[in-house]
Amino acid sequence: MTDIYCLLFEDYETLDLMGPVEFLHRLPQVKLHYVSQHGGQISSRQGFCVATEKMGGIGAGGILVVPGGQGTRRLVADAAFIHALGGWADAADICLSICTGSALLAATGRLDGLAATSNKKAFEWVRGVNGKVDWQRVARWVKSGKFYTSSGVSAGMDMTLGFIADYAGMSAAEQIARDTEYRWNADCSADEFSGLYRV
Amino acid sequence: MTDIYCLLFEDYETLDLMGPVEFLHRLPQVKLHYVSQHGGQISSRQGFCVATEKMGGIGAGGILVVPGGQGTRRLVADAAFIHALGGWADAADICLSICTGSALLAATGRLDGLAATSNKKAFEWVRGVNGKVDWQRVARWVKSGKFYTSSGVSAGMDMTLGFIADYAGMSAAEQIARDTEYRWNADCSADEFSGLYRV
Repeated sequence: MTDIYCLLFEDYETLDLMGPVEFLHRLPQVKLHYVSQHGGQISSRQGFCVATEKMGGIGAGGILVVPGGQGTRRLVADAAFIHALGGWADAADICLSICTGSALLAATGRLDGLAATSNKKAFEWVRGVNGKVDWQRVARWVKSGKFYTSSGVSAGMDMTLGFIADYAGMSAAEQIARDTEYRWNADCSADEFSGLYRV
Repeated sequence: MTDIYCLLFEDYETLDLMGPVEFLHRLPQVKLHYVSQHGGQISSRQGFCVATEKMGGIGAGGILVVPGGQGTRRLVADAAFIHALGGWADAADICLSICTGSALLAATGRLDGLAATSNKKAFEWVRGVNGKVDWQRVARWVKSGKFYTSSGVSAGMDMTLGFIADYAGMSAAEQIARDTEYRWNADCSADEFSGLYRV
């Protein structure tokens, strides 16, 4: 049984988390945990409240999922949160971040020297969080060792299927896409959105 | 201000609801309500609990969103729920259903004689709920008057943008797709998934 820890915080972006949740839950032998730094009810940017457990640590073989959203703007400067996140990232076998979730991982220093991506509209802000990351402007998602980082919001769904293809095989990823009637954009390098905000 | 009522029930499918929520929340002048028949904490099929208000009725100009999922199998035979849903559907200006959410609307009789669609893997079951609906086997989504019904899970996101294009203009739908880095499948008749289960 693999434990998957979905990290919620105030003002996370709904689809950043719930798209990946839809796909990850379909893996055999996984248990999803909805967790937050302190536990309790956490509201998404879209205003619904999810009951969370207090994050008690990542078990062996665990997978950490870090969404983005407006709440990251505050959290990158929250030293206690970033310190805790660094420990969770160290303990996890795999870290998946969606959208500006990669800004949180970048703030821990764990992405230093690694290729990563993020939301394209917010790209300059994310770069400003930590310039030591090898930020990729044109990418649907990027895999660097145990870190998978995706572009904005919907891109997390494509990245999650990419992770599932690596973790459980391409046929598992394709079956999940069929079962959810999802047109998977399986090319991690195809990113037509980056051009909208090119500097 | 337009009120949008997201109807939760036990074992609804996460992405059926949360994909549309992501897009609908980006419309100007809307308020999303997370409601259920009796109120309280409602768990998705993927195991997280959302706090809901008891559905108190649909206000003028209201929009009703009905997800699908495993929970619909029980609810189609729940006479009190189906009676209540029929009333909410009557009161709403617009009804959006995703995946097997259309089986719930069909059970109310409000889709009788209208074209509608549903999840393609579950299509025969849905047809069995009410054969007086003009079920469309090949469709990403179908609009019939005030009823928008979509195919399975992810198709709800494409339908929601189609609704937004009708409601707020094509440029609004396209802007939301860009802002969420979503590759919108904007052709409601393109449905490669129906062929997987053709009888």
